[in-house]
Order: sequence, then structure tokens, then C-alpha cells
Amino acid sequence: MNAADATVPGHVFTELTPVSFLRRAAAVFAERPAVIDGEFRCTYAELWERAQRMAGLLARHGVRPGDRVCLLAPNTHLALEAHYGVPLAGAVLVALNTRLSAPEIAYIVEHSGARLVLADTELLPLLDQALAGLGEPPAVIASDHYDDAVLTAPPLCVEVTDERGLLSVNYTSGTTGRPKGVMYHHRGAYLNALAMAFHTTMDTTSHYLWTLPMFHTNGWCFPWAVTAAGGVHHCLRKVDPETVWRALRSEGITHLCAAPTVLAMLADHPGAAPLAHRVRVFTGGAPPWPALLARTTELGLRVQHFYGLTETFGCALLCEPQPEWEDLPHDAWLGKVVRQGIPTVVGEAVRLVGRDGEQVPDDGVSLGEIELRGNNVMSGYYRDDEATAAASDGPWFRTGDLAVRHPDGYLEIRDRAKDVIISGGENITSVEVENTLTDHPGVAQAAVVAGPHEVWGEVPVAFVALRPGAGVGERELIDFVRSRIAHFKAPRRVVFGPLPTTSTGKPRKKLLRERAAAVLTAPVPVPEHAGEPS
Amino acid sequence: MNAADATVPGHVFTELTPVSFLRRAAAVFAERPAVIDGEFRCTYAELWERAQRMAGLLARHGVRPGDRVCLLAPNTHLALEAHYGVPLAGAVLVALNTRLSAPEIAYIVEHSGARLVLADTELLPLLDQALAGLGEPPAVIASDHYDDAVLTAPPLCVEVTDERGLLSVNYTSGTTGRPKGVMYHHRGAYLNALAMAFHTTMDTTSHYLWTLPMFHTNGWCFPWAVTAAGGVHHCLRKVDPETVWRALRSEGITHLCAAPTVLAMLADHPGAAPLAHRVRVFTGGAPPWPALLARTTELGLRVQHFYGLTETFGCALLCEPQPEWEDLPHDAWLGKVVRQGIPTVVGEAVRLVGRDGEQVPDDGVSLGEIELRGNNVMSGYYRDDEATAAASDGPWFRTGDLAVRHPDGYLEIRDRAKDVIISGGENITSVEVENTLTDHPGVAQAAVVAGPHEVWGEVPVAFVALRPGAGVGERELIDFVRSRIAHFKAPRRVVFGPLPTTSTGKPRKKLLRERAAAVLTAPVPVPEHAGEPS
Repeated sequence: MNAADATVPGHVFTELTPVSFLRRAAAVFAERPAVIDGEFRCTYAELWERAQRMAGLLARHGVRPGDRVCLLAPNTHLALEAHYGVPLAGAVLVALNTRLSAPEIAYIVEHSGARLVLADTELLPLLDQALAGLGEPPAVIASDHYDDAVLTAPPLCVEVTDERGLLSVNYTSGTTGRPKGVMYHHRGAYLNALAMAFHTTMDTTSHYLWTLPMFHTNGWCFPWAVTAAGGVHHCLRKVDPETVWRALRSEGITHLCAAPTVLAMLADHPGAAPLAHRVRVFTGGAPPWPALLARTTELGLRVQHFYGLTETFGCALLCEPQPEWEDLPHDAWLGKVVRQGIPTVVGEAVRLVGRDGEQVPDDGVSLGEIELRGNNVMSGYYRDDEATAAASDGPWFRTGDLAVRHPDGYLEIRDRAKDVIISGGENITSVEVENTLTDHPGVAQAAVVAGPHEVWGEVPVAFVALRPGAGVGERELIDFVRSRIAHFKAPRRVVFGPLPTTSTGKPRKKLLRERAAAVLTAPVPVPEHAGEPS
Repeated sequence: MNAADATVPGHVFTELTPVSFLRRAAAVFAERPAVIDGEFRCTYAELWERAQRMAGLLARHGVRPGDRVCLLAPNTHLALEAHYGVPLAGAVLVALNTRLSAPEIAYIVEHSGARLVLADTELLPLLDQALAGLGEPPAVIASDHYDDAVLTAPPLCVEVTDERGLLSVNYTSGTTGRPKGVMYHHRGAYLNALAMAFHTTMDTTSHYLWTLPMFHTNGWCFPWAVTAAGGVHHCLRKVDPETVWRALRSEGITHLCAAPTVLAMLADHPGAAPLAHRVRVFTGGAPPWPALLARTTELGLRVQHFYGLTETFGCALLCEPQPEWEDLPHDAWLGKVVRQGIPTVVGEAVRLVGRDGEQVPDDGVSLGEIELRGNNVMSGYYRDDEATAAASDGPWFRTGDLAVRHPDGYLEIRDRAKDVIISGGENITSVEVENTLTDHPGVAQAAVVAGPHEVWGEVPVAFVALRPGAGVGERELIDFVRSRIAHFKAPRRVVFGPLPTTSTGKPRKKLLRERAAAVLTAPVPVPEHAGEPS
């Protein structure tokens, strides 16, 4: 081939960005309903206009291309619009977990160097508390002001000039103590949104219920995927089973995403009953358990398991059902569908690496760490090259999760990154809780592990060695943690005594997990306010 | 944003190429059926291996990265494998229309500078005739040899290093006389294949019937889209209604693409009867007519209209049905679904430009030329900068088709590029036929226009002014054309006499089209062998 053959006029290509899905929807589904949020409704033409005016409003408040804009809101239309309005200002969206404590929010606002915070009015007290200690607090736009101001702000549309540039930063507790900012690029979000629209078979007849928080990995890219398909976003300020069942029955919901814990609450709700229409449910954050899948199937929910991390734009693997599975006996079918599955259609590759650094065979037995690469992997951790390097194995991203691959190509996780506690779908890093505990003057050493819990899946249980002469009680220590980090991260129980350690001096966490299970099931009254997610 | 914030390690990104869909399918759908072609069957693991071995075989025959490899085959497994094996050798696929004449094939082989031709054994006589006159003819691998040789060739997998590089060149007659080579890049084919998989809702339960020739715009990207979805490719050496109906009934076909003419043959076949299962049909190349859509709907075929050109990787617009249309009266529903529609989910933008160079309003009345841009537009014409420039309006590609846009955002073509004749789904350029006619020593001037035909949609009709004293008959002129270009391009009728011209001396084609219609419906016997596609 002559060199000239490959010469391509640059203007032919358009940068990939998920914002383009809204631009298209506004053109081709102009009058179709886009958002339903209580009394608030808008069409796709209106959503596109609101997003552009949000961009103009941000610019009026001093936001410039490249600036970070934090979002502190439940799943309202403000949150959805921010997924378009912030990038339309050329800025970078930092969606905050609304369950974080004020100091945690302060840390992220400061670390991200946010210029502005978009906040739900109900969360202003929490935000004020978080910003109180900052030297140069960012500007704040509250949702009630926003709803008025957006109507008259001038529209703004900053074009994406590099699809590999920053779209959003999603802070995760990850596997070390401090939150790390996962950098999303436009290219990955575009492709993953497209993959989600494809795998979920959404179209203009779809009604998507916003049970999954948008502050979790940008809602697994569904703010963009639903729009790409021209479906309806049903916003939800608070996820309670009553409201969700009502929406499923009377609003024609066809699709939703939820952590297994949320599904369990739905399945166990007194109002649960089989639905007349098909609802597709995508669950992730933790593996769904067989009994749950059996129950949800009875209820007419067609549940599919997604696996992924914040670092992979949400879903990286999915348990795509194969036609022949339908003919299997129930238990064999369950054995297939609880697996983590296969890469999405835009997932480039997945490999399992053994302790020797070599790939393990696909025999359903050999354990290896899941490593991923491709366009659906983050650019790195924001302003944290050390953490980025630690998570990299050459071009591969190390998930920290151990799995086997079955001969049919489907992965199954055998043991997730062993120190992370998954409670109500939220990651709790044991290191973070341990570090908080050892901040207490009476505590010498602490080890935190997961204990089983029927509602939250797992809850943290602490094992604490006190300093000689210290007189600290269980309730005092739990309150101490709750005063410093999110309530749901506080230990449900604290057990005092010397920690069993390995030969290299590390706590023997496997043994502690067994003890935690025993402690939680023992008939000891639990302090009334300790440990419940809030 | 600090400059460092945007710094992204290059290794995170993977180049987009449709070949990756097969790599993934081989990993995740290894044992699933990939191809059924008469007695030939293979799984996705086998298809991936065969494609890599085809690449090795090509390399063994001297094909190097960047070389062009022609394909001359009907819709067999060879053609499908070439869509992967050729790029896996780093080479560029040039799929030839099997209905072209030997001189036309010779032109494309020479213009593309092909190093090798993969040919169906049945087409070797045509190929031999085409290559006979070439100074340095390319190597040839015939399909019967290939089927043996591919089993032992060493696997080869040349990685794509630039997604904007050449994947294939698709020659089209376009709107000028000589075929032009439309350059496809990996990026566009990847994205359009993904869009096709999404819009057609294919998955592992899908059975795709290869009625649309793969040599047409790489089969609208379906060689890659079906694989992305993990569906089954049902190859088809020859499209006849009997075979298609048998496949629809007994092979569980769920999806197919076909030109309206082919659909008409299916609908009119004595064996046509409503199907028990849903079949999705995508039609394009020419607009389907209302009566046809009504009839196919009765037969249980759910037909959707695709619009696009070779230059747009096949489908660029599609008439996506909206839920409310189902409630419309039949005629109103027909009025909606016959339209060309809206950009695909990866289509960046479409605009209608009036004669004054300004965009026309979306009022359903104002006519403008359809212009497209985005990742689903070709890089340009191969070694033809002049034609590339002529088809460009800045960053926009000029389709030459005139349409209106309705207030709901859907486009409808009112008048296609006026000189192109679409016969049996094939483009025939009037200029090319005119130029051939005027090669005859007796012909002074010729104008060719479309006349209506109940089977082929349109057929060419020639109006010829003879040189003084020339004594040439209708049959002689038709035979003359048939000896030089594809038979289906030859005029069905020739009318002699002076040509009516405009004030600037151009033939008045609108008037001629009216005359052509009159001539075709007049009870004059048509020469037995003239004009039928062959």
C-alpha cells in the first residue's frame, strides 16, 4: 500500500462521546418522553436544551473547560442532566456518593479541585458541613435554584476535541484507605453505553427505572445508554421496595439495575407478586446468590448478572444466557446463570493470571486474578500515579478478583479481593475502617473483616487489641467510627482481644471471618444504632 | 485542568476493528455454531482458526500488510471468512460484484493493484477472462483449493495499529462512469457493525440468512454484526425464492437483509405463506413501496427500511418504528414506515442542504440534498482525490439524494440522484451506459434513463441520435452494450431520434423518463435476451 492510500482527511472522523447520544435523541426522538421524575417531565428535545443551558449556567458560575464539577444528589433529573450538562461545559463530572460523611466529601471536593458543586437541596446541610473546613470552597448551585436558573441560562455546547480526554472522575474506596478518583474517558463511556444498550435490548418502548445510584460508576453508563436507545428515564429519589413495586406495576417499567441486596429487598417485600409483563433486571456489585435468582425468576424478573468495577465503566463481564440453558434442569441452569460470564461486546479481552504470572488454563478449576484491558478500562487514578501503577500489569488492569474460567469461556469468581466488605452493594475497605479505629487513642491494633448479614449481604466486624490500661467499650468505638466516616462503614460488632497473626505478622483474616460469622449469629443484643447503612 | 490530568497511557486503548468481534466470539461462543453453508458447518472457535489460517495462506502467497486482496465469490463461507482472514493478514479486502463483466473486473483488479484474488471455483472462467489482458495478473486462490489449503496453513494475526487505516475498498458505479473505490476504515466498520447488532436486536438465538450479497458494501457490515451478536450465518450461494422460503420455514431464520426487488420476488412466490415465528427483514438499496410493505407484513415479515450508500458503510439511516405508530390506521402507518428515517445510533449527524447552500427547514416539504458526516462515512475514494473532493461539502459527504425532513425528525427521499437507475437493487449509472453506446461508431448522442419495471423496479431505456447515414438497429445496439458491460446494465429498449435538450444543451431527462415509461408499457415485443439481469 502506498503511504498515500492510508491518508484520511481528519474531518471525516467524529470524536466519540456519550453526549452525542442526547444530541441524536433530541433530533430523532424530539417529542418522545425522556425523563419522568415525580411531577417533572421532559422530552428529549427539552432534555437536550436543559443540558445545554446547564452548561451555560455552569460557565456563568466560572466553570471553564477542564474544571471539575461535583454532583451531590440522589437519582433526580438534576443528576441525569449533569451527565450531559457538565461535559457540554467541557468540564469533568465528579458524582459523589450521597451516603459519604462530611469529611469524606470534603476530601473528594478538595482532591478533585472542584470549581463548583451541584447539590440536591435536601443535601445542603451535609454539603455545608463538608465545605466548612475548606480554605477555598467551591461555588454551590442547589437544585431548587437550578430548576429556575436553567430555564434562562444561555445554551452552551463545548465540542469534545479528544475522545481520550476526561469525561468524569468516580471516586471509589478501592482497596486502599483513601478514596481514589477513577478517570473516565469519553471513548470508553461511549462504547460502554452502546454495549449496554445492545445487551439490554433497549429501544423507544423501554422504561428504565433508576434504582441504581447514578453516583455509582456513572450508573454503569446507563444515563447515556437509555438515551442512546430513546427509552424513558424514570428517576427515583429514594429506593424503597414499595415504590419500586408500584413503578413496576403501574409505570410499565421494562428495565432496571440493582445490587443483589436491593433485589433481595424487592423479592422479600410483602407486595411482591409475579408481573404480567417482562422486566429485565441487571444485577452487580456483588454476585447474586442462587436462591435469590430462583425467587426473582418466579416473580417474572429476568435477572442477568453483570460484573465490573468502577475502573471498568461498570459492567465489563456479563452472564449472557445461551439458548440451550433453557433446557437444563433448574439447578444446572442456576449454576450457569450465577457466573460472572463473558466480556461485553466492546470488551477487548480478559485473562486470568496465576500467582506465577502465567495465564491459568480454562478448566473451571484453576484460580487466577481477573485482568482486563481495552477501551472500557479507566485512564488511571486521578492525580495518583502510584495507585495507577499498582493496579497495572503492563497494559492490563488488575481487578484483584480471583476467578476460574469454565471451558465454555464463562468466568466465575471464587474469591473476591479478600479484604473488601460489600455491604448493601457498597464497597467498604477494611483498611479504611481499621485506620479509623486505630486513630482512637485506646486502640493498638485493629482488623476488620466481613461478617454475613441477611439484609446487607455483609457487614464489617472489628477485632481490636487495646492498648494496656485502655478502657474502651464496643459502643464507644462504633460511635467513634461513625463520627468520622460513613455510618454504613462502622463495624456492626467489635470483639476485643489479641489478634491472631500469620508468621509474617499479618492478621489471619480467614480465621477472623469465621469468628465474625459466629459472633453475628450469637444471641447477643446489637447496639441499636450501630452499623446499619444510613 | 492541569495538562497532566488528561495524560493517558496509550496502552489503555485498543484500536477499533470489526475483526475483534470474531476474536471475542471465539473466546465466549467457542462451541456455538457460526456458519452453515450447505454441508459445511463450523463453530466460532473454528471460524476464528480458519480466518487466521486464511491470513497465513495469503501471506504464503506473498500478500503483505497493506496489499489489496480481491474476492470474487457468492455468499459462501469463503466470502465470510475473507472478511476476517484478509484483515488478519493486514491486507485490504476488495469484494467484487459477481455480476460484473470481465472488463469491469479487470478494471477493478488493476485499479486496486490487487496482489491476489480469492475466487469461487465456479467463477474461474469469468476471472480468467478478466485477467487475460492484464500485464501482471495477481495470484489466484480458487475456493476448492482454499478449502484444503486453509486446514494446514500457519495461523497469522496481524494486529491493527491504526483504526483509521484501510480495511476494505468497495467499488461502486456511483454517479460517474468509472467504478470508484470506496475506502472503509476499521473504526467505521466496527461502529456500524455494532449499530447493526443493536438495531436488529440480534443475539445468540439469531439465525441470519445471507440473501444480501456480501460484495455490496461488505454486506452492510453484517459479516461483522452477526458475529458480534454470536448469531448463526446461513450462507446462500444463490438467492431464489424457493430456497429462501425453505430456509425461513425449516432453518429457523430470524433475520435477513434484501433489496425491495428481492422482497417482491419472495412476496409474489407461490410458496409464500405467513410464518409461525417472527422474522426481521431489513431492506434497502431502493425505497420499498407501500404495497410491498403491506404484503410482507401479512406474511409475518417485519420489514424495516434502511437507507445508505456504499460510502456510508451500508445503513446510515433507518426507519425506526415508534410505539405509537402501531395505533395508526393502516395507510397512516404505511406513510410512516416507508420513510428513510433517522441516523443510526452511531450516525453523528445528517443535514439537508438546499440549492442555496443553506439547510432547509424540517417541514416535510422543503427539499434538500442529504449530507452526512461522522465515523460511518468513508475515508474517500481510492486513488481518486478528484472524486473525493466532488463528493465533499467541507466535512460533509454529499449523497446526491434529495429529501425532506418531517417535523418528527424522519427523512423521506423525494427524488434520488436523478441519473442513477436502480435495477434489481443494483445501481446503474446512466453516464456509463451512455458512454458505452456512444462508443458505437453509428451513435451520435445517447441519453439513458430509468423506465419502470414490475420485477426489477427500474430498467435502463436508451434514447439515441444516430450519425447521418448510420443504419443501426435496436438489437444490435443492445448486443453491443452487453458485450462491453454487465448484461443488466444494457438498455431494455432503444428509441431512435433527435434528443430533446434544455437550453444549455443537456438532454431533458425528466421528459425522457416519461417517454421511457410509455415505451415500456407499449405492446411492442422486447428482444428476448435483452436487459434481464444475469
